[in-house]
Amino acid sequence: MSWDHTASISTLITLQDISKAGPTKDAATPVLSLSAQARSKGYDSVCLPLTTDNWKKRWTEMCLLPNGTDLAADMAAERRAEAWRAKPGFLLDEVTITQLDEAEGVIVTVSDWLELDASDDWVRHDAEIALQQELAYAAYLNIHTVILPPPRSRQHVSSYARTVNACLKKSPYMHISIRLPIYNPSVLEGSISSIPGSPSIPALQPASPAPSTPRLVVSDDRSTDSASTNLDATWEMWDVIRSICDYNTCLSLTLDLTPPLPVNSSFLNKWKAETIRYLFLPASTFIANTKGYPVLPKGTQSFIRDSVTHRPVVILSGANLGLHNVGGELAYSQYLRHLEKTSPSVQAALTSGTVENFAQGYQDYLQAPLQPLMDNLQSVTYQTFEQDPVKYHNYEEAIYHAVVDWPGEDKIILCVAGAGRGPLVARCLAAIKRAGRDAHIYAVEKNPNAYVTLLGKKEAEWHDQVTLLFGDMRFIDVPEKADILISELLGSFGDNELSPECLDGAVRFLKPDGLSIPSSYTAHLAPLSSSKLFNEARAGKDEKCLETPYVVMFRAVNLLSGDGGGTNGRCGPQVQECWEFEHPRRDAVLDERGLPLTNSHNVRSAKLNFFIPHSGVLHGLAGYFEAVLYGNIGLSIHPHRKNRISKDMLSWFPLFFPFKEPLYLPSNSELQVSIWRLTNQQQVWYEWHAEAFLNVNAIPFDTEVPVPSPRSATLANGGSFFSSPPTNTPSPLIDANDAFAFDRRASIESGSRLIKIGHTSLHNPGGRSSWIGL
Amino acid sequence: MSWDHTASISTLITLQDISKAGPTKDAATPVLSLSAQARSKGYDSVCLPLTTDNWKKRWTEMCLLPNGTDLAADMAAERRAEAWRAKPGFLLDEVTITQLDEAEGVIVTVSDWLELDASDDWVRHDAEIALQQELAYAAYLNIHTVILPPPRSRQHVSSYARTVNACLKKSPYMHISIRLPIYNPSVLEGSISSIPGSPSIPALQPASPAPSTPRLVVSDDRSTDSASTNLDATWEMWDVIRSICDYNTCLSLTLDLTPPLPVNSSFLNKWKAETIRYLFLPASTFIANTKGYPVLPKGTQSFIRDSVTHRPVVILSGANLGLHNVGGELAYSQYLRHLEKTSPSVQAALTSGTVENFAQGYQDYLQAPLQPLMDNLQSVTYQTFEQDPVKYHNYEEAIYHAVVDWPGEDKIILCVAGAGRGPLVARCLAAIKRAGRDAHIYAVEKNPNAYVTLLGKKEAEWHDQVTLLFGDMRFIDVPEKADILISELLGSFGDNELSPECLDGAVRFLKPDGLSIPSSYTAHLAPLSSSKLFNEARAGKDEKCLETPYVVMFRAVNLLSGDGGGTNGRCGPQVQECWEFEHPRRDAVLDERGLPLTNSHNVRSAKLNFFIPHSGVLHGLAGYFEAVLYGNIGLSIHPHRKNRISKDMLSWFPLFFPFKEPLYLPSNSELQVSIWRLTNQQQVWYEWHAEAFLNVNAIPFDTEVPVPSPRSATLANGGSFFSSPPTNTPSPLIDANDAFAFDRRASIESGSRLIKIGHTSLHNPGGRSSWIGL
Repeated sequence: MSWDHTASISTLITLQDISKAGPTKDAATPVLSLSAQARSKGYDSVCLPLTTDNWKKRWTEMCLLPNGTDLAADMAAERRAEAWRAKPGFLLDEVTITQLDEAEGVIVTVSDWLELDASDDWVRHDAEIALQQELAYAAYLNIHTVILPPPRSRQHVSSYARTVNACLKKSPYMHISIRLPIYNPSVLEGSISSIPGSPSIPALQPASPAPSTPRLVVSDDRSTDSASTNLDATWEMWDVIRSICDYNTCLSLTLDLTPPLPVNSSFLNKWKAETIRYLFLPASTFIANTKGYPVLPKGTQSFIRDSVTHRPVVILSGANLGLHNVGGELAYSQYLRHLEKTSPSVQAALTSGTVENFAQGYQDYLQAPLQPLMDNLQSVTYQTFEQDPVKYHNYEEAIYHAVVDWPGEDKIILCVAGAGRGPLVARCLAAIKRAGRDAHIYAVEKNPNAYVTLLGKKEAEWHDQVTLLFGDMRFIDVPEKADILISELLGSFGDNELSPECLDGAVRFLKPDGLSIPSSYTAHLAPLSSSKLFNEARAGKDEKCLETPYVVMFRAVNLLSGDGGGTNGRCGPQVQECWEFEHPRRDAVLDERGLPLTNSHNVRSAKLNFFIPHSGVLHGLAGYFEAVLYGNIGLSIHPHRKNRISKDMLSWFPLFFPFKEPLYLPSNSELQVSIWRLTNQQQVWYEWHAEAFLNVNAIPFDTEVPVPSPRSATLANGGSFFSSPPTNTPSPLIDANDAFAFDRRASIESGSRLIKIGHTSLHNPGGRSSWIGL
Repeated sequence: MSWDHTASISTLITLQDISKAGPTKDAATPVLSLSAQARSKGYDSVCLPLTTDNWKKRWTEMCLLPNGTDLAADMAAERRAEAWRAKPGFLLDEVTITQLDEAEGVIVTVSDWLELDASDDWVRHDAEIALQQELAYAAYLNIHTVILPPPRSRQHVSSYARTVNACLKKSPYMHISIRLPIYNPSVLEGSISSIPGSPSIPALQPASPAPSTPRLVVSDDRSTDSASTNLDATWEMWDVIRSICDYNTCLSLTLDLTPPLPVNSSFLNKWKAETIRYLFLPASTFIANTKGYPVLPKGTQSFIRDSVTHRPVVILSGANLGLHNVGGELAYSQYLRHLEKTSPSVQAALTSGTVENFAQGYQDYLQAPLQPLMDNLQSVTYQTFEQDPVKYHNYEEAIYHAVVDWPGEDKIILCVAGAGRGPLVARCLAAIKRAGRDAHIYAVEKNPNAYVTLLGKKEAEWHDQVTLLFGDMRFIDVPEKADILISELLGSFGDNELSPECLDGAVRFLKPDGLSIPSSYTAHLAPLSSSKLFNEARAGKDEKCLETPYVVMFRAVNLLSGDGGGTNGRCGPQVQECWEFEHPRRDAVLDERGLPLTNSHNVRSAKLNFFIPHSGVLHGLAGYFEAVLYGNIGLSIHPHRKNRISKDMLSWFPLFFPFKEPLYLPSNSELQVSIWRLTNQQQVWYEWHAEAFLNVNAIPFDTEVPVPSPRSATLANGGSFFSSPPTNTPSPLIDANDAFAFDRRASIESGSRLIKIGHTSLHNPGGRSSWIGL
């Protein structure tokens, strides 16, 4: 295979495997010989239990006292236990690994009978001592990763989590992964605990007296509410664990895919925002295809295809048990490689020209947004952005149509405001040529270094058709007013690189009936969950790093909002528009030079209502922009519309507005996001804040049934998103806001009981952490 | 009057008052002459509006443009507005105060027509500029406090709050107080907006077409749920404001008492936890008593009596309007002084021997708990605690009864473990004498400095009846085993000064049938709200100060929990027991010296379920202890039981376990608190954590109806709280915990929809911020 695997495959070795394997002729140990066999079968690593049944027996006899029938024996056991508690340690036959070479590259599972969440204080205390002992022994053997058995109940998960946190503190170089079923398998009508190859998952799947064929209640997309609660139950436990462990980067998930997954169930999306390091997959989860080869159920297939982009280790268990007739042991890992190769995200990353390919290495990497007004960009930065084939293509089309549509026969005056190294000038020349119109171009640039490049291009290519002007578009004068003003000043959030303020200055160059390309742009937001981005943002040097927006290519994120919904249907779509800027702006009061007296007219604010269908943790806001260049030609990084408007455009990753404190949002809750664009005479900045609400009288939602929504309506009518003018149309959002009255009258009249349940801090007040210089 | 007033009284001067008052013969200004008049009437200060109607007129004409009927006039207004926005400032006739001497000691109200929460971005932006201008002018005049008009709607309160925060940042020495009605007066069936003397409160009390006598819907203690929501509405706005302002200590509340208050309504308790600096009280709120003098409605009376302990300024308005026939203007302030003098908390503070008197100056002051095992106390510390009349009285009674009850005629051997400077030794001698029994006392002390005092007392007073032993009770040997072991090692949370560990050592001195005084003790918790304590705790030098328990005499706090309630009634009482220690402990495994091998047996944990009847913000946990000394003699700081068990005991203030992040709790929510007492060979520490839940199918609660609860049951049966032995009795708490099963079976079978809505961090993991040395 010619590409690097994104996933690696490990095989689970059991205590039975070890006891069956004798030492080989080269005097290797059973573990060494099993590891060698696994490598020869193509596995990247092995996973095995650290302790033997002897350890279980000793611990149980010491720490779980029989009920007082023999007091002397109990006291003797308690005396042994006290001695052990004072100085915990193993005997030789209590562990599977004793040599460094046996431990090399292995993943170990700790004793799965440890009740870290026992309700009994003593049992839990002794289980914690045992766990610390196992971790210390693993660390001694240079083992880097251990997998813990899952918690047994929601009731005591905080005790489980507290223990895990204590272990993380005591073994700072050890990576701890928590095994959890992807959902609580009790929503299965039958039981799967008796499936061979599936090691016992204590408590989470209690043995059912009448096993039957597993059937998924959610598969008909009409989950009852209690089923939906149970679907969330394991995620909720994970959330408690990683929160109590304060998002420790040495903590991850081993997601157990034993329960078969539904197809297209949006409740699975939440796992995308979590740190999944291992996927546990027993051979018993595979079904036979028509030829008898093992394949996975459709839902599990697509989950794995989506997950490989996170580079997980898949731990296969029971592949050697012969559960399927055809293909043998290797059929399972070959099938996993097939899923990987056919994963859309892997394929996109392998195809040049895609954002996925362009963004290799930038996924979930936080970058400070550019400040091209304050800082002069470097040539290499211009070069990167000039490579975007889609953006400049759309600009040329917009200029071409604007020129073609321009009335009369006179020479057309174009002005490129912010010419950089000249890509827009070149597109202007191409468009004019195609249109067959007579035109002259003024190119304004304030970066003295880029201006040298422009001078070179004029001398070599452009000659008299282009006049270069050096200076800041907000302050210089031009010899002639333009018909068409062309600029590329947009940031990931539209106005966040001060396009409005710059064009306020440049609009002086425009004739009264002139037009601007772009003619308008809008900023958009959606609430987002991502442990990865939360950890990346707070890894900065001070707390201000959690109050600054970042440019990020999203990967391990999940948008928490659904389309529409909420009490009285007042919530807007998944991604909502904040505000708009239009150019040229004709209503501003200007001074004698044609400049606005203050920047007050560029103040904006938005209050957005999002419906949160599935519980999740809010870590930030995803910011996007859309721009109308001319007519129905635009640019968009809006996740639902970018492919129709500017597919494969590379120049902008989304913006990420972090929240300092993760905010827990239950299923069917509503999130009110406030965002302000503020300004003084020197700076522009954003402040943001959110409040969460829950409707306690809500009728249970059919969480998987799509709610008719503004977005799907737009998609359905098949027209361009520009087909109705973006302004003056009653926005469904604004209507929703108006309907959302918390005041006396509304709350008494409607009987609505929308209850506040939480909020974030106000972020970046006064621009203390982040501002853009005017 | 011989005592310092706890409240001070201010009078509100209106624009009408100012325009009526001409300058006096000594050429004073109207404001100076009104201030002098007020002082002569006994007011401590005056409150007056900062701006005149001229300012309102100019701002309105500039910033609220008429709807485009005259474009030229609009443009001219906009031009003036832009000039003002660029350089904001007043004209002479737009302000009431122009001289430093006029401003001295006055409180000003800013323009009450400023719409800081307008939905229109422009109006809000201009209102913010105007507010900043008013604050800057007030600061210029050395005015330290301004009162802001209330927000107009819940909908835009985040914008209001953002503006206030911007002002606090820009005027760091200015104290800003937000005027808010104590509840949303719209729950009144009629309107009170037309009452004279009550300045207009914009929007919060919309004019009603049919004014009628105000009648409080809640007064029958059976509020509907929507009324309860409205009762919380203004508090909820305050919570948004102070949260967005990050609990700024320059921000406070001016609580408007215009709406009459219900008697004994627990929803008012939440205001106790807030920073109330001013109470706004119009003369119109007063009613006439039988003689015609102005008095307040009962609910308002008791609210003010409770509030004076927070040292508020009461701003009286309209006292000069002659609304009541008898008593004249001075009758109002005289009546307020009467309320102050008859306030139970003021009276308690004036009575020597009460905790309130003893604790003067210590209210809400955070102290690190003592570590008497690790540190040797100073003589002055011993002296303070020896002054407690109640504690040592109860000890003497306990010793007396234990000696009287002691079987046989032999000499009784007593051992005081931790004798300090000798108060318990003295009580032992007194008890023995009263009982007429022959006894000998061993007194063990490890503090070499206190030991000198003991040596002095032996020589001077005790002679041969007492044998002194120098050393740590965990390690020394005694010449003779004791019948009764007496110790006073308890902290505010019972075991938090390592009494269990010390007595594990001292129990070696006890004969097999010996007894310990105390014989047992328990730790108790309740969830608590207090902006003051939250701010005090985080004022420490690093974030660890929010993970350490403190000893605090509570004042500005509110316990959030109610008694019982919750889904299936599984929540316990308002204050719940965590765990218990009993002495002597007879089941431990000991080494040859009689000492335990590990400290594992002193590990404890508790998971408590609290019902939260009224919305509030969780800032921490209040910790208390109770101890059984002997029989039914005990010590208690449990808020409901201390007066029956050890009234006026001074030695212990409660413990405060802070939370780093305030957690919002809606009405009728449930809080699950986990707390662990953990130990290794060197240290003991607590970790704590909480999760919040809401039952979305909850039937609306009658929030004012008391729920039958374990506590009130205990109170009702009239017996001692010790009447049933504290152990082996099924605790209502433990039953509740058992009933609280989140597991599959329970959640499916009961159809319960308890939804998680939030959690705190795990606090003090691994004892990183706070531990007690062994």
